[in-house]
Amino acid sequence: MRFTSTDGITEQEFLLDDVPAVLWTPDDGKKLADRPLIVNAHGGGQHKKAPSMLAAARRFVLDGGFAVLAMDAPAHNGRPRTEAHEQAIARIREPGGVAALHKLLSDQSIPEWRAVLDALDPGPIGYFGLSMGSGLGIPFVAREPRVRAAVLGLLGHESADAALISVPTRFLMQWDDELVSRDAALELFDSIGSQEKALHANPGGHGEVPEAEWADAVRFFTRHLR
Amino acid sequence: MRFTSTDGITEQEFLLDDVPAVLWTPDDGKKLADRPLIVNAHGGGQHKKAPSMLAAARRFVLDGGFAVLAMDAPAHNGRPRTEAHEQAIARIREPGGVAALHKLLSDQSIPEWRAVLDALDPGPIGYFGLSMGSGLGIPFVAREPRVRAAVLGLLGHESADAALISVPTRFLMQWDDELVSRDAALELFDSIGSQEKALHANPGGHGEVPEAEWADAVRFFTRHLR
Repeated sequence: MRFTSTDGITEQEFLLDDVPAVLWTPDDGKKLADRPLIVNAHGGGQHKKAPSMLAAARRFVLDGGFAVLAMDAPAHNGRPRTEAHEQAIARIREPGGVAALHKLLSDQSIPEWRAVLDALDPGPIGYFGLSMGSGLGIPFVAREPRVRAAVLGLLGHESADAALISVPTRFLMQWDDELVSRDAALELFDSIGSQEKALHANPGGHGEVPEAEWADAVRFFTRHLR
Repeated sequence: MRFTSTDGITEQEFLLDDVPAVLWTPDDGKKLADRPLIVNAHGGGQHKKAPSMLAAARRFVLDGGFAVLAMDAPAHNGRPRTEAHEQAIARIREPGGVAALHKLLSDQSIPEWRAVLDALDPGPIGYFGLSMGSGLGIPFVAREPRVRAAVLGLLGHESADAALISVPTRFLMQWDDELVSRDAALELFDSIGSQEKALHANPGGHGEVPEAEWADAVRFFTRHLR
């Protein structure tokens, strides 16, 4: 395990069963059990410490007082790629290809998230994951009772698991998303089972979620996890 | 003019050229020119002091420190109904009927809002109006340069004026709206010309905008008017 501390944030990098993970916490000496934790899942081709991940972690830690956990997704950031991974990645542009890749990866990532949460034993858990982070997050949020609120979005393929989600959910959509059609995103939002859910759509492309949505996500998690 | 003051809010009812209006301000002695003002437009069949209008005014005054202005819309709350009003109201369920009624009313209400704003001379102006409040608000926000930000929604008919709106706009949509189809609401949001706009969709019917959206509207206006 490696510790660094800057700007009021402690960063701990660690491996759990060979899965690289990082935990950010406010430098205030509180125990992990005594504060909410945000599981922050990265997008496709990204990694646990990509710039957008660091920016989100800073916000959640400094503005929300949350702990933030990120892990490299299977087949990402140098993690081993099986033959099945390679085949699914090669088929990503075929119809159903994104959903098939996400299914393959989430079958692996869900037990990994669970093992880390078992080890950390934090307070109430929120899930934040857009794009592939939602593809892997939807089955996780649907089946993991420790997760109490979720911010999802930038995804459009159908998911039977979405109907099983019951916690308060914010769904972010980019109105001019070059990777996700409007109809597909709206259908996915529609299929989320939660009684309390909200769609936030903003102009711009897949990578252009406005700053205000991150500030709003902090408030959303504060409302539901504190 | 009639003054009352309770709970830190001053209420002033007045007539301007026979149009009944009400102004709510925080009890802090500040001049109207020195604070933002929210024009709060009521829905169809409602009036300037309907319960939802009073609740919104309280929030805007107490949580935002704004002044709030409301007026009875033409043909509402005992205001005179012309033959044209009666005909348009009778045709409200025909295709295009809602848009035609809103056009008729807004031709009258826009100069009324302008006259009151001329008389009051407040600080930066925000517009809040859902359903008919949006029907009357879209041409107003599109054409009145004093308006700097708008919260609109619960409406779906086409409006060429929407494309002329350029100020930051929040658009509220109820996902299960019994009066406005999803496609129509999404098309109206799409047609809004503002570079900065956001769609917030929540489950529930026309009258069930969740409490959190009002709190969020206060933050939205604070961001853009202060």
